Formats: sequence, structure tokens, C-alpha cells
Amino acid sequence: MDLQNALSKLDALQRRQLAYQHAMGLIDYDGATAAPSGAAANRGETLAILSEESYKLATGPETVDLLDALHENREQLDETHRRIVETMYEDIDEMRKVPMDEYVDYQRLLNESQAVWHRAKESDDYALFKPLLKRMIDANKRIMAYAKPDMPIYDALLNRYEKGLTREKCDAFFGVVRRELVPLIHAVSEAPQVDDSVLFGSFPLDRQRQLSDYLMDVMKLDRSHVAIAETEHPFTTGFTKYDVRITTHYHEENFSYSMFSVIHEGGHALYDLHPADDLAYTVLGGGVSMSIHESQSRFYENIIGRSREFIGLIAPRLRELFPHLRDVPDGALYLAINKAAPSLIRTEADELTYCLHILIRYELEQRLFDGTLTVEDLPAEWNRLYKEYLGVDVPSDKEGVLQDMHWSAGLFAYFPSYALGSAYGAQMLHVMKQTVDVKEALSRGDLSPINDWLESHIWKYGGLYDPGVLLEKALGMPFDPMYYIRYLKEKYSEIYRL
Amino acid sequence: MDLQNALSKLDALQRRQLAYQHAMGLIDYDGATAAPSGAAANRGETLAILSEESYKLATGPETVDLLDALHENREQLDETHRRIVETMYEDIDEMRKVPMDEYVDYQRLLNESQAVWHRAKESDDYALFKPLLKRMIDANKRIMAYAKPDMPIYDALLNRYEKGLTREKCDAFFGVVRRELVPLIHAVSEAPQVDDSVLFGSFPLDRQRQLSDYLMDVMKLDRSHVAIAETEHPFTTGFTKYDVRITTHYHEENFSYSMFSVIHEGGHALYDLHPADDLAYTVLGGGVSMSIHESQSRFYENIIGRSREFIGLIAPRLRELFPHLRDVPDGALYLAINKAAPSLIRTEADELTYCLHILIRYELEQRLFDGTLTVEDLPAEWNRLYKEYLGVDVPSDKEGVLQDMHWSAGLFAYFPSYALGSAYGAQMLHVMKQTVDVKEALSRGDLSPINDWLESHIWKYGGLYDPGVLLEKALGMPFDPMYYIRYLKEKYSEIYRL
Repeated sequence: MDLQNALSKLDALQRRQLAYQHAMGLIDYDGATAAPSGAAANRGETLAILSEESYKLATGPETVDLLDALHENREQLDETHRRIVETMYEDIDEMRKVPMDEYVDYQRLLNESQAVWHRAKESDDYALFKPLLKRMIDANKRIMAYAKPDMPIYDALLNRYEKGLTREKCDAFFGVVRRELVPLIHAVSEAPQVDDSVLFGSFPLDRQRQLSDYLMDVMKLDRSHVAIAETEHPFTTGFTKYDVRITTHYHEENFSYSMFSVIHEGGHALYDLHPADDLAYTVLGGGVSMSIHESQSRFYENIIGRSREFIGLIAPRLRELFPHLRDVPDGALYLAINKAAPSLIRTEADELTYCLHILIRYELEQRLFDGTLTVEDLPAEWNRLYKEYLGVDVPSDKEGVLQDMHWSAGLFAYFPSYALGSAYGAQMLHVMKQTVDVKEALSRGDLSPINDWLESHIWKYGGLYDPGVLLEKALGMPFDPMYYIRYLKEKYSEIYRL
Repeated sequence: MDLQNALSKLDALQRRQLAYQHAMGLIDYDGATAAPSGAAANRGETLAILSEESYKLATGPETVDLLDALHENREQLDETHRRIVETMYEDIDEMRKVPMDEYVDYQRLLNESQAVWHRAKESDDYALFKPLLKRMIDANKRIMAYAKPDMPIYDALLNRYEKGLTREKCDAFFGVVRRELVPLIHAVSEAPQVDDSVLFGSFPLDRQRQLSDYLMDVMKLDRSHVAIAETEHPFTTGFTKYDVRITTHYHEENFSYSMFSVIHEGGHALYDLHPADDLAYTVLGGGVSMSIHESQSRFYENIIGRSREFIGLIAPRLRELFPHLRDVPDGALYLAINKAAPSLIRTEADELTYCLHILIRYELEQRLFDGTLTVEDLPAEWNRLYKEYLGVDVPSDKEGVLQDMHWSAGLFAYFPSYALGSAYGAQMLHVMKQTVDVKEALSRGDLSPINDWLESHIWKYGGLYDPGVLLEKALGMPFDPMYYIRYLKEKYSEIYRL
């Protein structure tokens, strides 16, 4: 084969695929930020057609022949091209197992499901969403059975977001978390509670928008390649490293919701913005896995954003924007934003109890997929587990099972990423501190040394290595959840004077 | 041939084409409203690829065979399908004459040209834009020579926006306008000037945003199918009748700029929202031509929006939003917004002198295309004509030749549509008044009778008839610019007590 010619075909193919992904990603993003409410059916029509075209491109005979040939000759390729070929070959190998009708129908279902979930959440009407959830589960079961016939369904789902992850590994990880954190949370619950009343008041949206701009500057997000918009449930999307979007949701009565959304999504965006240039228009141009992605967002949100030094850094600007905070000392602000207490809503949960929200979803998902839980019984089980693990009563499905958009968007087995990401981030901090004076960088207000470490250890590699390999390379040691446990114990023992 | 089968293929083909148009339209819209500044190259890459795919679809052998067959059997089709086939057949007949490379290169150039125009306008640097303008003119010449080899280039360009229009017809139309309006403008210039100082002050953007929402409600724009966003140079785009976007630009010091943008773009949007349902996912689902489109937008902006009754209707809300206006009587507001005076910026021109801005562009365009004017000499000629026709000195290219985005977007021969549209609208008013009490509807604040007339005479037909045919059908008589002249004479003689 003419290798040079094949590689230039491979380049063109990736650019065409990225063009479809750009278009479809933008239609989704627009649907969540700017589109009129009655445009969902039209959007679904377009997405179904574009995904059909994209599917045809990805699985057409020309593509298959090209990848078969390149895969056979992969030993002759440089590392990057070999990785690209292996990644695309694996994808196509799975995709050709899924019938095209199934794939196209799923895109349509996905769109309907998300639109219905929006309405169901708004009107607190789980019955509206229930049949869609059932269809989403069934469709995902069928698709996974086609795509990874040799894997248990839930393992197959996990592998979509974290290659190599299994239910067994997750069980072990959540086991450590449960064993170590439940007593800590128990101790915290019995300690005198910290006062977070300073976070509440009236915070005009235009001031909160200014805060978002300021935070993005502090994080060194390059605004010529990243924009911010408003949506119901914040998310980040990147079309390439040259065009990344974050979103937030402003709550007039509490500036901290949006503040930590922006920092969290900003962490995702930094990762999306910094793959090496030669990866930009390739399949390796995004982040490698969801939990590595979440390690970046949650590292920024919690480890950086909720640190004493970061709060000290931004407090003057907060006081400038919100007269309400004028007499609040840094220390009181730090305690307020780190208040830990069992609660209802995952996205508003504190750093400490957050993992239990994930644990509940993790357990329910497994049962939905292994058939031991039906969509009829889901809300009651949801509520029972919230009572059992977190001690809270769920007053409505809107604040319960309907709160997250994930299942409506087919993101099953995605939740574990958040918990794993948190744990990865804590271990990264441990290693980073060996060469970077993190506290000093934060106090000085120049986050470059932190970003530089993340860029050189994680971001620049894009999808070049499997998540497990990348993580071990970055850490210089195997993953160990005890770094996360120790980080939380130290932080919360100090805050709650345990 | 199996006609039923061919028609269902035709339906699928149109839906696929609309999906590409939706994606490309949204990428453009996003580029003008939400995208980060450094994303233009990425956007260009995606647009080039999608337009190549769309071009392949539109000109591929399957499409050509289908349309050839349907065109041959067109007499067997119902009116709507016959029209669809004729429209698509004509397009394809032109498209297959343009080489694909030319088409794809043009999409890329278009994107670059718009981005550079933005920068050139911002930095008042015509030299930056000049080479792009030259390339745009050359590309349009080449493309028109391929597409309509038997037509003079400028006629071919005119026909893109108004089928059947020629330079000869335009010359005749602008002749009447020049002959009748120049003396009127002269008389107005010598009369005592009206006072528009009440329009100036400080008008907070959030209040102006509320005004936009209010105006869209008054116009009965269905917000579940039309959204508003902010941009540099306002425009409207519709993906289908189910998803239409208008844009505006807020000026803190004068609320009326954005107010009339919203009413103007709202007029476009009403047209885009109301083709009959069975036209929605077809090539006839948009407006039929640019001047019919402009007749709707300028009808709303000027004939409705700048009428005494409309100002009376919205004045209470204006006073509520802007305390500045609290003591301004309706009459003073009416005079202020109808102040006529020669000026620099087309989009800020008054209803009366507006046509001279168009006349200047019309003359320059012809000379740029027939080779008697170079891009080097363009700014000087622009400035000379502004002095000659409007008596104003152009202080900078930013306020001169760089002010409009049209040429950067390849919209050559588009400007005449604005003037023609104004004239069509005035004649529509004349006919509408025979069955609708327009003043009474406006005074009552219920614009339904006006919208109903426009819907039943113009909107619902989409692209079903040629613009000339539609217009004569709606008017029940041939087009005659004297209705426009009489409308302006009556209005401005009263305002300036001539």
C-alpha cells in the first residue's frame, strides 16, 4: 500500500468526521442555550439526518478498507498515527456491529428523550419521562449487546467512558470510599455546623456575569477560543481545541452555584483547549476519557476553587462585585463554601458528601440494567437510598430522580467518572506538590505553574494513551484512592475541628 | 417512472438538503452571535467540508437523474410539487455548470472575507479588507459566468435575489425615486428641523432587552419558534418555519437603534414563520425573494413601526422602561423617530433619505462589476458620492465603505432589494387599507388583522410563485413605485409642514 497516500486519506476522513461532530455538537449546544423551545423536532430531524451521514462516512466501504489496510500496516506508523489507526479501527469494529437503523433511531430517541426530560423536570412529572427512560435503557442494552457482545452490559457501558474499567474495579473503589468516608461524614455531621449564610442574598445577574469573566481570566482560559453561555444544566462542549464552549446557570439568590459551575466547566475547557497542535484535527484531539476529564474539572472546582488560597485570591473581587460580602473576612467565606451537609441535589452537593450521590446512582444504574429494578420502581428506590445513605427525604421527583439530565442523554455508567475523577485529582495534587508550590502560586494569583503541570502531564497528550496508562505516567505510580481519602480527611478535620 | 416513489425520494432529498442548510446556517449564526473570536478558521474548515457534502448531494448523479425524470413528467404533478421540481431543476442546472472546486473555495473565501471585514471595520482599516473584496468580486464574476453564461454579470447577480429583475428595470425604478424624492428631500432639508434629542440618553441594556421582548410580543412573534440574540450587524436567519432567529445590537445611548432593528428583523421573521405547513420541509419553505422579504421587514420597520399609531401604542411601555421618556408626549416621540436628515450610516438612516444610501451602493456595485471602478478607488468614490448625493463628508472608512457586511458576505446586487422592498410595502399598505382598518388595529394594539392580511397574501405562499407573480396577485394590480412616492410625500409633508 501507498502509506503516504493512505495517511492523507486518513487525515481527510478525520476532518470530515470532525465537521459532522462540530455541526451536531453545535446543534446540541444551541438547543441547550439559545434555540426557541418549539424547535426541538426540527433539531431532531436534522440530527437524525446528519448522524446518518456521519455513520455512513464512518462505516462506509472506503473507510473500512482504509482502516483495515492501515491497521494491518500499523507497525510502520509513528506513535501518533498508530494510535489514531488503533482508535478508529476499534470504533469501526464496534460500529459495524450495530445496525445503521438502530444507530439512527437512537439519535432520534436521544433528542426526544432530552426534550421530554426537560418538560418532565419543569412540571415535576416523572410519568412523562418514564417511557422514554425505559426506551433509552432498552436501546442502550441492544446497542451494547451488538457492540461488545463479550462484555457484561454494564461493563460495556463503563468502557465507553473509561477504557478498561469494570464493575469489579468500581465496586472495589466505591468500597474504599464507603468504608473511609462514611465515618468521616458521620463525625462531620455531629460537629458544630459552619455558617454559610453569607452566600445567600441578592446577587444581580449582570454582576454574576462579570464574576464569570473574572474567574475565566484567573484560570487563564483563552477567551479567543472559549465562550460562555447560559443553560439549565451546565456542561462543556469542544468542537476542536480552537472552539470550546462552557455554560453556567445563574441563581440570583446565591452567587456560588454559578461560580463553581464556571470553575468546574472551566477545568474541562482547559483540558479541551490544550491537546498538542498536531492532535487538533484528529480523533485524539479531545480528552482521553470521562474520568480523566472529570479529574480536571473537579480538581479545579474543589481542590483549587475551594482552597483557602484561592478564596483569598478572589475575595477582593467578590467584595467589589457584591456589596453584601463587604464585611465578610476570607476565613468566613472559606468556611461557608466548604460547608458539608447531606443534601438532595448532586450538583449542589459539597465536596465531602458528593460521592454518596454518585454511589446511589451507581447502584441504581446497575440494577436498571441487570433487570432487578424497573423504571416504575425507580423513584421509590431513589428516595429510599437518599434516606438510607444521606438521611434526607426527597420531596419531589424534580429534586429526586429527575434532577440530572444524564440518563435522558444516554449517559449511563457515566456517573462513576465523577467520583473516580475526584480521586485522580487528589492524587495529582499530591504529585504536583513535589515540584510546584501550589499554595504560593494561588496566593500570588498566577496559576501558570499549576496549568503548566497539568498541560505537560495530562492535557497535551489528548487521547494518545489509554486513561490508565496516562494516569500512571502522570502520577509516576499506580492509582490509589487513599490519596483522595487523606486529602478529604485533612481538609474536613481542620474545617470541623475534629 | 414510479411517480409516488420519485416524490418520496424528492421529499427525502429536500430534508437532507435542509439538514445541511440548518447546520451551516447555525454555524454562521453562532459565528455572529456566540462563538469565540479565534474559532473562525475552525468554522471555515467545517463549512467548507459541509458545503462540499451538500454540493455533492445536490449535484450527485442520483439527484440529477431524479430531477431530470421528475422535470420531464412535471405536467403530471400537483402545483406545489411542480413548483418544487422546477425550482430544484433550475438550481441544479446552474449548479452543475459551476465546478465543485470553485464552489468549495468560495465557501472558504466567504468565511475568511467575513472574518477579515469584522477586523477591518473594528480597526478602521480598509487596506486589510481590500484584497478580500477583490477576490470576492472576481469569484462572483467567475461563478456567475459559469451559472448564467447568457446574462450580463450584474443582471445575473440581481436574479439571485429577485428572479426576473434586470439592471434596466432597476435603472427605471431608481429613476422615478431620484426624480420624485430629491426635490422632497430638498424641501425637507430647508424646513425647520424636528427635535430628536429625547432619543438620546442612557438606556440600560437589560431594559432594552425587555423592550425587545415586548416588541416581539406586540408583533405576535411566537417565541416558541423564534429566538433573539445579539450581534454586530443585525440579521435574521430561519432554518425552517419552526426555528427562526433574529438578532439585534444594543447601543446604550440610544434605544431606538435596537428598537427598529428588532421590528425590522421581526418583519423578516414573521415571513419566515408563516409559510403553509406543507411547504415547511421543502425548498419553498422560505421567502420567495429578497425584495419581498425586505418588503415585509421594511413594512414593519417603517410603515408600521414609525407610524403615529404604533408609537402611541408602545409609548406607555417605553416610559415605563426608560424614566428619561416619562414627560415626553407621544407626538414629540413620533416626530423624533421620524426626523429626516442626510447621514453617514445606512442602517441608521431615516425612512426618507434611506433610498439614496441604496442608490450609491447600486451605482458603485455596477462599476465594480463592469470594471470601471477598482477596489483601490472604491473608498474615494464612496466618499465622493456621499458628498454629492447626501451632502455629507465621510470621516473614516469605518463609517464609509466598511459599514455594511454585505459585500464581505458576497451579497452583491442585494442592496436594490431594500429600496424595492420599501416600495412594494407602500403599495401593499394601499391595498391592505381597502379591507383592513390599519390605524384602528394599531390603536387597539391588536396587530392580528395586519398579520392576517400579510399571511394570506404573502407569507403562506412561501416560494410557490415568482416574486413578480406573487406581488401582482397580492396587490391585484401591477407594481407602481408612485404609491411609495405618495406615501412618503404625505407623511413627510405633514411632519415638516411643507
